[in-house]
Amino acid sequence: MKIDRARLESTIEELGRIGATERGGLTRLALTDEDRRGRDLMVSWMRQAGLRVTVDQMGNIFGERPGQPGQPPVMMGSHVDSVPTGGKYDGQLGVLCALETIRTLNDARARTLHPVTLVVFTNEEGARFQPAMIASGVMAGKIALEDAYSARDKDGCRLVDELERIGYLGSEPCVPRPLRAYLELHIEQGPQLEEEGLSVGVVEGIVAIAWSRLTIHGVQDHAGPTPMRIRHDALVAAAEVVAGVRGIARRLGGDLVTTVGNLTVAPNIVNAIPGRVTLSIDMRDPDDATLDRALPLLDRVVAEACEREGVRHELEHYWRVPYTPFDREVVGAVERAARATGAGHRRILSGAGHDAQYMAAMGPTGMIFVPSRGGRSHCEEEFTPMDDIEHGANTLLGAALELAGQAGVSAA
Amino acid sequence: MKIDRARLESTIEELGRIGATERGGLTRLALTDEDRRGRDLMVSWMRQAGLRVTVDQMGNIFGERPGQPGQPPVMMGSHVDSVPTGGKYDGQLGVLCALETIRTLNDARARTLHPVTLVVFTNEEGARFQPAMIASGVMAGKIALEDAYSARDKDGCRLVDELERIGYLGSEPCVPRPLRAYLELHIEQGPQLEEEGLSVGVVEGIVAIAWSRLTIHGVQDHAGPTPMRIRHDALVAAAEVVAGVRGIARRLGGDLVTTVGNLTVAPNIVNAIPGRVTLSIDMRDPDDATLDRALPLLDRVVAEACEREGVRHELEHYWRVPYTPFDREVVGAVERAARATGAGHRRILSGAGHDAQYMAAMGPTGMIFVPSRGGRSHCEEEFTPMDDIEHGANTLLGAALELAGQAGVSAA
Repeated sequence: MKIDRARLESTIEELGRIGATERGGLTRLALTDEDRRGRDLMVSWMRQAGLRVTVDQMGNIFGERPGQPGQPPVMMGSHVDSVPTGGKYDGQLGVLCALETIRTLNDARARTLHPVTLVVFTNEEGARFQPAMIASGVMAGKIALEDAYSARDKDGCRLVDELERIGYLGSEPCVPRPLRAYLELHIEQGPQLEEEGLSVGVVEGIVAIAWSRLTIHGVQDHAGPTPMRIRHDALVAAAEVVAGVRGIARRLGGDLVTTVGNLTVAPNIVNAIPGRVTLSIDMRDPDDATLDRALPLLDRVVAEACEREGVRHELEHYWRVPYTPFDREVVGAVERAARATGAGHRRILSGAGHDAQYMAAMGPTGMIFVPSRGGRSHCEEEFTPMDDIEHGANTLLGAALELAGQAGVSAA
Repeated sequence: MKIDRARLESTIEELGRIGATERGGLTRLALTDEDRRGRDLMVSWMRQAGLRVTVDQMGNIFGERPGQPGQPPVMMGSHVDSVPTGGKYDGQLGVLCALETIRTLNDARARTLHPVTLVVFTNEEGARFQPAMIASGVMAGKIALEDAYSARDKDGCRLVDELERIGYLGSEPCVPRPLRAYLELHIEQGPQLEEEGLSVGVVEGIVAIAWSRLTIHGVQDHAGPTPMRIRHDALVAAAEVVAGVRGIARRLGGDLVTTVGNLTVAPNIVNAIPGRVTLSIDMRDPDDATLDRALPLLDRVVAEACEREGVRHELEHYWRVPYTPFDREVVGAVERAARATGAGHRRILSGAGHDAQYMAAMGPTGMIFVPSRGGRSHCEEEFTPMDDIEHGANTLLGAALELAGQAGVSAA
């Protein structure tokens, strides 16, 4: 059984047109009109494939292909939201390869012991509402539904109101579900597969992640008549923090990555000394113990920078996800399926968080990576060759079939 | 002849309500609806004071109190636009003390040889449209009218369209005018007068100013799976520039002040390595030669920071105003008037740009400073005690009378 490459490619193109940017990327922020159009298209394809479509309280969309009665499903999916000026592979590829897998099962009239269910998760990116992966987090019982509902975007819109506005505030409880397995195909978003000339990554786990936010309160004043000796410049302190965050990765070395991705200045005009700066700190490592060492270093970097400039600060370590190892049986099934496709493959860790992280708390979980050109993602230049996508999709099909268990081919 | 303190105070309160913030400040960006309401109130007061009101092509408002035929006017004024979350003294105080001066002349039925004209300049702050002081710049022939008209705010609105929208696109040519003198009362925006317990600053000139803008192009990528070794982070380079700009002031010392006030990150989300940062550099010194030394240092700071991070950049030194000495006769008149009020006073330099800077190219110009509590301005905490304002306004009245020349008291 093989997926239909041309059909898969056409769905990638069609979904990629929703929220498309001029330079070949995608802006499809969670729960915007673009996200709604992406969801609507997915739902129409799911219905055409004969799936029973339901929507839960967090707007997660499920499309079930039945198996034997009473069996928990093999779930496959990802997300259709993107970061601003992101690419058209991150998330999208996971739901479309899952759709293609189901279409291929349909073509073959394959009957499986376990149902096979396609899932589209809400607000995976965390670009509009924080934290990221909020909807699988609620499903896994790690985030309270009311907290998720009251998350606000930068314009103050509440997540629950936006869910309702776009017509995806469903009624199914967003709670843990019985699960045979969860499989997610995703782009690697790093350089390893491409550097080694491989098509498929057999993901063994997801690195530990810590997110912090810092607000620095300086003294807003005029940039001209205010002598240097009386200044308390929030941005000067923030700049030292940015340098210090980079320094933490240099100091601890290994696979630790540290990033200040968000930084906002107030009042942010040429001739005013910045009175307030807010910024984010993202730190990741395969080893939880490394983050345990990095966080106190961050505390010290911030305290020293702010003390030197004579400014107040609030530092909040608000999100922490431990290292997530994937299920041995599922990782094995993915590896066997990759080998069967003939694709070059290797075991690999994920440096990015995925809904699979929360799904792993609910049942046996694994992921499949395909290469990212130049290791790049979250940008318009994001690209994965179709040959690799085909290998990845066939790996997903093979692993799903093994885990769902063939119940024969329908006579119909 | 003395100004009416209670009347002046009530106008400060009334105008201060337009665009007032909850914490006692003001947001009245140029050519917004708040600016229009501030202008409308000024125009109604000017008409009530019997002034002949005209508006020029840049929206500058002139209200003339006649003198002898054919004589050039003594002009007094400032601006009513503010920075975001600014204070209610910057600009506003200058136009209201000028109004109070005219009301006092009216009460005394004073006749002057030279007309006395109140002027309200458009977009002095440069917070919405750049550069700052754009309208006096056009009037002085230093900025082309078409360049000013096509200046855009951050939402892409053109200055000329906004002038028209709020009803202040006048027909009078915005060109140099014959001038007996220009006088501007303003808050000091620095700490010197308060530190020395003085009420009035006799301003001898305005420091030299250089504005630059920098765009850094990094490589936008995912903050998780992108190893530190392949990163080109625009914000890491920008942070080094912010530290380096502070370092230039430390290195050259003296009165040099250097500020990064504006810094914007794209895509500005927690989990993306910043792909682009734009930032402003503001450098000022009483001595042009110091800026001549500072600008090449800035070039080097930027080049080194960007080379270290492997990112491209564009650095543009787009605005430079030389040291502006004020007119000896006008400075003398201000000093004599300050002495006559009995107020504590001293000669002082302005660290901030003012419309007086461009007016000095058109005719004899001077300024009067009143203290800023804590040296603070461009913030909601901006404050000047009413005792000092009264001394300042009486100094303005005295200087204007000396320069306008009394032609006796009307018989009417």
